[in-house]
Amino acid sequence: MKVVIAPDSYKGSLSSVSAAEAIAKGVKKALPSCEVISVPVADGGEGTMDSLVSATGGKKVKVSVMGPLHKKVAAEYGVLGDEKTCVIEMASASGLELIDKSERNPLIATTFGTGELIKKALDDGYRHFILAVGGSATNDGGAGMLQALGLKIMNDAGDEIGLGGEALGEVTSVQLDSLDSRIKDCQFLIASDVQNPFIGPNGASHVFGPQKGASPEVVETLDHYMGNWADVIEHATKVRLHDRPGAGAAGGIGGAFQAFFNADMKRGIDLVIEYTGLKEKMVNADCVFTGEGQCDFQTASGKTPMGVAEAARINHIPVFVLAGSIGKGIEELYEYGITSVHSLVTSPMELDEAMERSAELLADAAERVMRTFIAFQR
Amino acid sequence: MKVVIAPDSYKGSLSSVSAAEAIAKGVKKALPSCEVISVPVADGGEGTMDSLVSATGGKKVKVSVMGPLHKKVAAEYGVLGDEKTCVIEMASASGLELIDKSERNPLIATTFGTGELIKKALDDGYRHFILAVGGSATNDGGAGMLQALGLKIMNDAGDEIGLGGEALGEVTSVQLDSLDSRIKDCQFLIASDVQNPFIGPNGASHVFGPQKGASPEVVETLDHYMGNWADVIEHATKVRLHDRPGAGAAGGIGGAFQAFFNADMKRGIDLVIEYTGLKEKMVNADCVFTGEGQCDFQTASGKTPMGVAEAARINHIPVFVLAGSIGKGIEELYEYGITSVHSLVTSPMELDEAMERSAELLADAAERVMRTFIAFQR
Repeated sequence: MKVVIAPDSYKGSLSSVSAAEAIAKGVKKALPSCEVISVPVADGGEGTMDSLVSATGGKKVKVSVMGPLHKKVAAEYGVLGDEKTCVIEMASASGLELIDKSERNPLIATTFGTGELIKKALDDGYRHFILAVGGSATNDGGAGMLQALGLKIMNDAGDEIGLGGEALGEVTSVQLDSLDSRIKDCQFLIASDVQNPFIGPNGASHVFGPQKGASPEVVETLDHYMGNWADVIEHATKVRLHDRPGAGAAGGIGGAFQAFFNADMKRGIDLVIEYTGLKEKMVNADCVFTGEGQCDFQTASGKTPMGVAEAARINHIPVFVLAGSIGKGIEELYEYGITSVHSLVTSPMELDEAMERSAELLADAAERVMRTFIAFQR
Repeated sequence: MKVVIAPDSYKGSLSSVSAAEAIAKGVKKALPSCEVISVPVADGGEGTMDSLVSATGGKKVKVSVMGPLHKKVAAEYGVLGDEKTCVIEMASASGLELIDKSERNPLIATTFGTGELIKKALDDGYRHFILAVGGSATNDGGAGMLQALGLKIMNDAGDEIGLGGEALGEVTSVQLDSLDSRIKDCQFLIASDVQNPFIGPNGASHVFGPQKGASPEVVETLDHYMGNWADVIEHATKVRLHDRPGAGAAGGIGGAFQAFFNADMKRGIDLVIEYTGLKEKMVNADCVFTGEGQCDFQTASGKTPMGVAEAARINHIPVFVLAGSIGKGIEELYEYGITSVHSLVTSPMELDEAMERSAELLADAAERVMRTFIAFQR
């Protein structure tokens, strides 16, 4: 029997790599002779770089860059096993997780560090990029990233503007020829599930600003400044971001990629499934295990178990979801090819206990599902 | 596909009948075409009468009798579908559940009401009895039951003794011919897992006295008085209960049955499985669902899921256990033929919530196990 194990991370308790190890342990306990293929995955958010690096046998490179609030942070980029594709998690350089909740401030938060990561990878010779843009602390329309890559973004006085969302209000022009010339030789693939436009009521500032610390007034200000930035970009590049789907991803960095770079966007989980080779690894598998921290009606909208189920469906392989917690509305998942959803929790317990014991509980869950599944064989 | 559903009750939340209904609902949701056979079971404790009456299509008869503390209680006995076997739960007339914890007092608690239940059934024409003796509040060596059935139990002054464990201290003789003459035409089958003797450190008073409200001093007193009662019984019947295995069941009523009645003892779950016809109902089944409130290492010692697994094993039928809570040591259960153990709990939650939502959670658990099991068929 061949079993593919493709979990996401269990937020706050297990990385996708550790989760895959725990599931494999449980599966092997139920059926020691079982062939197990572990493919830790991610949906384009946290853990995407680890998943791709792990699945392809790649490596990681540490780089010190400017964090979202202009202080140095220890970031890293990944290189896939093909030794030519570079994978960057924006959250590693410009992420919300790097700062305290009380410090969140999209008026000053910048994507400069993400630009530095790209620059370092360019210096190291890479020209193919995968960008996972989830979890950013920024709302600067990608200006910081462009600044790190040399682009001169000017104000009325002929000076370069500062960093952060607030500085976008004074932009009047950009000097296109100042952008790192190596960029034109590069291909960028953006992992993003976001279809929001650059500005407006469904734009970056209104939809994602509040979770990055913007008050209602700041949201209005940011949206207004982003509008100015979009006008300047349109004038310079002829690309109109204002209402362009996906341009609002990650505080507008999605738009910056679309206007200045050779970039395509792809749904995170689809990109991960493609680059991990999950579909190929599933050939002749008897079942697939996947999972995430919380499984509920939202899972159907492009989260990892859904992507795994779509990939498995082609080969009619049963898909078992192991969730930290099962919420409402999972019935819908059955229609998308998910066979059954199981919780790690085995008795009334506190969330803290469940998270602390998650590796053990996950192995146990995998074991009982596997034992149940193979019972049909007797 | 044919599925047999044979759960115990989920203590404090679901009777075995309600549990079987919930499981059937979940199984049908996973596979609407499935043939479902519900056989609510019990291990000889609470719910044994309901299980046997339900499984055989029998009936219940209400009888007002003396409760453990001498007040009237509304008790009932059951009649199996064969219309000749009467099933009595001692707890219905003389049970701990009938009194407040603060009132527990084995010095005065009597089995008189259990005797009244038997007497009423005799009056109604029954001569075959199944007695489930779990959950008693008494430590009277079955004296009260015998008194209700006419036996004159005398003291030195030539008077009949009173009720309860304390009165056993003054017994000097019994008048055997005063016992209801119909008893000699009766067969009693006692459902009990207890191997404890009548008296001594492993006897009824020492082992079960404390949970019935006896202080250490009272335990000594009861054991001493039970010793006197055993001496009198031996003198009258030539049956020596003192160190006889099983005589200590239910405050010594086990011994009274052995000495005065035509009685056999049988492990509760075995008796229930025999009388519900569970083995026969399992023929050609594809899998069996069972369950109980808490599943752990203790389950292996004769609790319902083990008995069901033993019955299923003969036909190599997979057995799925749905437990309110999974405790330690369940690995051992696999060796006894249990396929897998699943919890009702699906997220970190309080015990109260799990118990309140138990019917819904149980149906969901049955559904996901069934979906997992049948996935192998595709």
